[in-house]
Amino acid sequence: MKKTVGVILLTYGLSLAVSTAGAAQKPVEPIAPATGINQAKAELGKKLFFDPRLSKSGFISCNSCHNLSRGGTDNLKTSIGHNWQQGPINSPTVLNSSMNFVQFWDGRAKDLQDQAGGPIANPGEMAFSHDLAEEVLQSIPGYVAEFKNVFGKDRIAIDQVTDALAEFEKTLVTPNSRFDQWLKGDKEALTAEEQAGYTLFQESGCISCHYGMAMGGGSFYKMGMVEEFKANSPSQGRKDVTGKEEHYFMFKVPTLRNVELTSPYFHDGSARTLSQAVDTMARHQLGKKFTQEENGQLVAFLKTLTGEQPSFPLPILPPSSETTPRPKPFE
Amino acid sequence: MKKTVGVILLTYGLSLAVSTAGAAQKPVEPIAPATGINQAKAELGKKLFFDPRLSKSGFISCNSCHNLSRGGTDNLKTSIGHNWQQGPINSPTVLNSSMNFVQFWDGRAKDLQDQAGGPIANPGEMAFSHDLAEEVLQSIPGYVAEFKNVFGKDRIAIDQVTDALAEFEKTLVTPNSRFDQWLKGDKEALTAEEQAGYTLFQESGCISCHYGMAMGGGSFYKMGMVEEFKANSPSQGRKDVTGKEEHYFMFKVPTLRNVELTSPYFHDGSARTLSQAVDTMARHQLGKKFTQEENGQLVAFLKTLTGEQPSFPLPILPPSSETTPRPKPFE
Repeated sequence: MKKTVGVILLTYGLSLAVSTAGAAQKPVEPIAPATGINQAKAELGKKLFFDPRLSKSGFISCNSCHNLSRGGTDNLKTSIGHNWQQGPINSPTVLNSSMNFVQFWDGRAKDLQDQAGGPIANPGEMAFSHDLAEEVLQSIPGYVAEFKNVFGKDRIAIDQVTDALAEFEKTLVTPNSRFDQWLKGDKEALTAEEQAGYTLFQESGCISCHYGMAMGGGSFYKMGMVEEFKANSPSQGRKDVTGKEEHYFMFKVPTLRNVELTSPYFHDGSARTLSQAVDTMARHQLGKKFTQEENGQLVAFLKTLTGEQPSFPLPILPPSSETTPRPKPFE
Repeated sequence: MKKTVGVILLTYGLSLAVSTAGAAQKPVEPIAPATGINQAKAELGKKLFFDPRLSKSGFISCNSCHNLSRGGTDNLKTSIGHNWQQGPINSPTVLNSSMNFVQFWDGRAKDLQDQAGGPIANPGEMAFSHDLAEEVLQSIPGYVAEFKNVFGKDRIAIDQVTDALAEFEKTLVTPNSRFDQWLKGDKEALTAEEQAGYTLFQESGCISCHYGMAMGGGSFYKMGMVEEFKANSPSQGRKDVTGKEEHYFMFKVPTLRNVELTSPYFHDGSARTLSQAVDTMARHQLGKKFTQEENGQLVAFLKTLTGEQPSFPLPILPPSSETTPRPKPFE
C-alpha cells in the first residue's frame, strides 16, 4: 500500500514530507471527467432533474434544492419543501456526488439511484408519490417517447426515472480546478498562500477525512470528535439509520470540491462562511485553534477547489397533455 | 393602410379571402429574431433572471414563475410566492414579452424594465426590496465586476438591475414555429386540419384581438365581452390601475405564441386545456359555440404556434462573499 501511495504522490508531485504523514495514505486526486455515460439516458435524466411536475405543487424540482447555477445546492441552512416546510438538514451538493460511497448525510441510500426516489416521495420535500410521478410522466407524450427510446418499454416505471436521474447526476463532475491543475504539475496554478493552505490541510489532518477525488464522501465520521458539537438540526446522523448508539452523530464526510459555492456549511448549515467552517472543524474535529493567518491560508486553498461547472443548455420540458394530472400546490 | 396590409398578406401568402375580412387589417406576422441586443448586458440579465438572491428567501428567482424550461410560465393557476403565498393572478409568459404594448395583465408597467422591478419588491412574490437587492448584489464581487463592465459604474443600482433583466428578456423570442414557416411560404408546414383552424381563427374574429407578431399583447379587451365571465381572481383588470369603471375587467390580450406550453389559461388560470380555453373564448368573447370539429381544428392550429425555445447554457452564478446578507426564508 505504501508503495502505491508513493507512486501517486510522485505522479502528482506532492512533497515527500506528505508521504510520511499517516494521512497521506489516502491521497487527494484530481477529478477525472465522467466516462461511460449513456447519453440518451442522461439527457432524459436532465429533463427530469429540472421538472417540477415530479412534485405535488408543480413548483419544486430536484434543481430547486440542488441548483446547478449555484454549486448544486440551494445555499440555505436547510431547504424549503412543499408548503414552505423547513427541512431538517442542509442540502448537500449534487456535484461530484457520484464519488460518494453512500448518499444523504446519514448514508441511508446506497447509491445515486437509491437516493433519487427519496425527495420525490418525502412529504416535507416534493410531497409527491412514486405512483403519481409515474402517472404524470405517462400522460406526457414527449416523455413516453423518450423513455421508450431509452428503456425500450411503453410503461414508465419509477425505477427508470431514478435510473435516468442518476445517469444525469453522474455527468455532474467538476474537473480542472486550479488545485487539480497544480496537482497535475502546473506549479503556477496556486499562489504561495494557497500552497501553504494545502500543506496545512495535510499536516493538520484535514486530509484524513477529506481524501480522494471528491476530497470527502468516502467515510462516516463523528461530528464533534474532540469537542461536542451542538447542532441546530434534529438529525442524529447514522444512528437514525442503524439505531446503534455508537453511530450517534456520525455523518458522511462532505466533499470539499466547489466548497466556495456551497455555503452555508455542515449538516445544520450553521457555518455561514468558510472561515467559520475552518475554525469549527479545527476545534471540534482536530482539537486545534488556527491563527488568523493559517485560517486565511486554508480558506484560500479551499477556494482553489472550484472546478469547471457543468455546462449544458437549459432543458426544454415536454408539455403536459389534456390528461396530465394537474399540480395541487394549495391542497 | 389597406394597401400595406395587402402587401403583407401577399408577402406571407395568405388567401385573398382573408384580406376581405375586417380583422385582416391587423395581420398576423412571423416572429422576427431579436436584434440590437447588448450582449454583455443580456448575459448579466440572464444571471439575474436565474438568481434567487433577489428574493427574501433566497429561493425564488424570476425563473421560478417564468420558467424558461416550460414556455416562460409556471404552469400553475396562480403563482406561489414567498412563504407559499397564493398569488392573485396567472403568471404570463415571458416569451416574446418584448412585443407586449404594456406589461402585466392590467398594463400597470409601461415596458419590460418597468415590470422587472415589480415582483422583486412585491411582498407576495419575492418579498425583497430594491435597496436590499442592491446591497446583496454589491456584496458579490462577480456581480460588481460585471455591472462595472456593462454600466461603467462601481455602485450597482436597481435601475441597472431592471435594465439588464429587460435586455435579457428581449432575447426571449421564439421564431420559426410551424405556423411561421407556413406564413413564409412553406405550404407543407401545416396540415389541412391546422390550416382549417387558421381560417376559422380569422373568420370567427379571434384575430381581432390576437394579431401582430405575438398574436396578442397589443390591446386591452374586456374579459366577457358578450357573456359575463366569473373569474377566480380578485383582479379587476385595468380598473385597478386607472380607477375607471369602464376599465373594469379589461385585461391585456395575452400572446398566443407557445400557447401549447403555457397552460392553464386566462388571468385566473381557470381553463385547464386549450380545448376549454377555445370554448370559453368563443362563448364569452364572440358569442359563438364551436362544433367539436371546429374546436379540434382551432386547437390543432394553436399548437403550431410553438416556436424555437430560447437555448442557452444554464448560467453559473457568482458566489456570495463573507459580507453578503444571508437569505431569510423562515423569518
